[in-house]
Amino acid sequence: MRFELTKDFLEQLRRAIQAEDTVWIDEHILGLHFADIAELLDELTKEQAKFVYFRLDEDLQADVLMELEEDVRDRFIKTLSSKEIAEQLENLDSDDAADILGELTDKEIQEVISHMEDDEAAEDIVDLLNYDEDTAGGLMQKEFIQANLSWPVDRCIVELRRQAEDVEQVYTIYVVDQLNKLVGLLSLKRLLFASPKTKISDLYQDKNIISVKTTDSSEEVARVMEKYDLVSIPVVDFQNKLVGRITIDDVMDIIKEEADKDFQLASGISEKIEANATVWRMSRARLPWLLIGMLGGTLGAQVISTYEGSISKIPALAFFIPLITAMGGNVGVQSSAIVVQSLARGNQFDSITSKLAKETLVGLLNGLICSICIFGIATVFENQTLGITVSIALFVVILFAAIMGSMIPLILNRYKIDPALATGPFVTTLNDVLGLFIYFTVGMILYGL
Amino acid sequence: MRFELTKDFLEQLRRAIQAEDTVWIDEHILGLHFADIAELLDELTKEQAKFVYFRLDEDLQADVLMELEEDVRDRFIKTLSSKEIAEQLENLDSDDAADILGELTDKEIQEVISHMEDDEAAEDIVDLLNYDEDTAGGLMQKEFIQANLSWPVDRCIVELRRQAEDVEQVYTIYVVDQLNKLVGLLSLKRLLFASPKTKISDLYQDKNIISVKTTDSSEEVARVMEKYDLVSIPVVDFQNKLVGRITIDDVMDIIKEEADKDFQLASGISEKIEANATVWRMSRARLPWLLIGMLGGTLGAQVISTYEGSISKIPALAFFIPLITAMGGNVGVQSSAIVVQSLARGNQFDSITSKLAKETLVGLLNGLICSICIFGIATVFENQTLGITVSIALFVVILFAAIMGSMIPLILNRYKIDPALATGPFVTTLNDVLGLFIYFTVGMILYGL
Repeated sequence: MRFELTKDFLEQLRRAIQAEDTVWIDEHILGLHFADIAELLDELTKEQAKFVYFRLDEDLQADVLMELEEDVRDRFIKTLSSKEIAEQLENLDSDDAADILGELTDKEIQEVISHMEDDEAAEDIVDLLNYDEDTAGGLMQKEFIQANLSWPVDRCIVELRRQAEDVEQVYTIYVVDQLNKLVGLLSLKRLLFASPKTKISDLYQDKNIISVKTTDSSEEVARVMEKYDLVSIPVVDFQNKLVGRITIDDVMDIIKEEADKDFQLASGISEKIEANATVWRMSRARLPWLLIGMLGGTLGAQVISTYEGSISKIPALAFFIPLITAMGGNVGVQSSAIVVQSLARGNQFDSITSKLAKETLVGLLNGLICSICIFGIATVFENQTLGITVSIALFVVILFAAIMGSMIPLILNRYKIDPALATGPFVTTLNDVLGLFIYFTVGMILYGL
Repeated sequence: MRFELTKDFLEQLRRAIQAEDTVWIDEHILGLHFADIAELLDELTKEQAKFVYFRLDEDLQADVLMELEEDVRDRFIKTLSSKEIAEQLENLDSDDAADILGELTDKEIQEVISHMEDDEAAEDIVDLLNYDEDTAGGLMQKEFIQANLSWPVDRCIVELRRQAEDVEQVYTIYVVDQLNKLVGLLSLKRLLFASPKTKISDLYQDKNIISVKTTDSSEEVARVMEKYDLVSIPVVDFQNKLVGRITIDDVMDIIKEEADKDFQLASGISEKIEANATVWRMSRARLPWLLIGMLGGTLGAQVISTYEGSISKIPALAFFIPLITAMGGNVGVQSSAIVVQSLARGNQFDSITSKLAKETLVGLLNGLICSICIFGIATVFENQTLGITVSIALFVVILFAAIMGSMIPLILNRYKIDPALATGPFVTTLNDVLGLFIYFTVGMILYGL
């Protein structure tokens, strides 16, 4: 049975904390899975959370701490003394500990480190702080299991037992040579079923060893782990020496963040922000696109103003301005979304011409269907001349929007700019201006203005 | 060193296939990682791919086959006889085999199954075909490792060795009782370091065992594995009997698909489609939104037409129609994107009022900044009355759009409709109509029309 967090349960917990009813808390909370406890703490105030947190045993504390939402965790850590933080760090994996320290000032970091009792762990953490957080070095942990090429299986098991104390999840044993260079992999399965005197060198897998360098970007790490279906990946330095490993759970977060970022970019939000960011940060993240939109709108005004005479004669021409711009925008966004996604999946060898040809065909088909509909609507609504004007203009606008919508991300991608920038306001704005120009030109011709 | 696919290499490979140069192919291809070979085959014609594929040994074939892009694989399978397909299935995991069979007609499935030599494997696959492909049952594989509560460690290792032949990746051993009910987990690490006579019942972990039911949806499986940081999850039936397991690589695909679907929904594409879908399917997936957009445009035309008199007197009012609608749309999409993402992350306990209040504040701030800018622009462009009209209207439109953009996904979510539907054309269309109404009302008042 999985635990389901309900409002009732949360209410009971809050009351128990209020009353300092440790019996109720111990009975109902300590047995839960750490992810469920974290979910609970996310909903409490930091004082309430602290009360529950310090009822947990050390190992559980570490697991819960890393499952908290990032901002909840940061706020929570800020309520602890540097000695208390040091105690928490001792129970964490080195990469998690480094992440937490990374949020503190240099002075705070020094203080916390000075309170740590396990010198080796402290050293590992300090070492990890040197790496850029968006690289493999910044993602990796120092806890992994390695075996030497020359060991026999029985010695290997003894050595591994010692190493394994620090390592929570063992997926694969990394095999190194005398110089600590990564030479291969060994699955626990093979080790388990091998006879005691077999040498590791006769047992390990040395072909197609996939690793990443400390300097590889986190996106590259995610791409490689996804492509090769890995649950953990070894990290090596420039001499191919084994220095760490990255596990799939850290990479899943990156993949989700990437998807979120693309979604936000496409929605016209320029910085990566969370729903709980401050009002000021939220405004700032959105302003760039709004200003681009204003520029587009101003250009649109410029285009329309050149047709001022036509409008004062035939004001009905103004009626369908929003339809033309909206449809241009919609079609453009649709086309660019498809292209952006296919680029994100790395279909780099599909020819640009074939993509454009396809989008053009889709544009033709949808343009035709929409034009026929709008001809009927505009004719009934006003008159046949307006009907013909709007339907011809709409057809051309849809076709153009489909082509522009797919071309712009392809061009951005060629110049190494994130193509997700193209969806959203950018394409919309461009298509607005273009659409208005087409619409009024067609109108002028048909109305003989 | 990781393999990087280049156009040159691809060209050489094509030439080698053309010349049936098996020496070159064996030397350059057979040593590659299966994921790299699959990437290569994705770029070849199905005849070329077939030629390379049948140079690989059986195990490599199976790995490569499952790494091919779905449509490439489907086309490839169609070129094989049912006997050849049966041979391929024998080397696959049961879930992969069932996926491939699922693409065939009932008659073809019967034929392929009749050609399979391993009866037990055939039975597993046929069993899996009974489950809906979007459920845990449809995702799970029959290959997993289980141990009985009553076994001692040494017997367990002997039994596991037999079972492990079929299981490629061993992450966790599932512990069952005499009735085959799932009672706990055992890590390979613990087994490796235990003494031979220890009973499994003294070794296994029985607390907080996370499993899914065969009927759980694939989204639920993804959510649970993500929340609890699992690389594999056991699947049980209604009696809690262990029937399969799901591994993280299958779930990563679902997570990516979900993100893609949200992105497409937000971009106004109603069915999940790939970049290589047919023109007809692509058109159909986009039409619903375009027709909604047309409806919105027609409503907009209706709104404007009620101000026909004003426009014929002051045609300059028409100039800023696109700016007003575009800005309403942009702000609405931004607000809804933030709300949709925060809902997708499951922040269900944040109060709706606090979200609305925040979006309103952001709307106020951005509305103020944009209004000031546009007042200057419109005043220079035309005159002060138009400047005041546009800036007041824009402020109100931005504020409204921010509120509507965040309210609509919240409302949809409450009625269990996917809130991602709200972003894109839906919000844009609504804001267009509202924005026009506000704009012309302000204009009429200020111009005294």
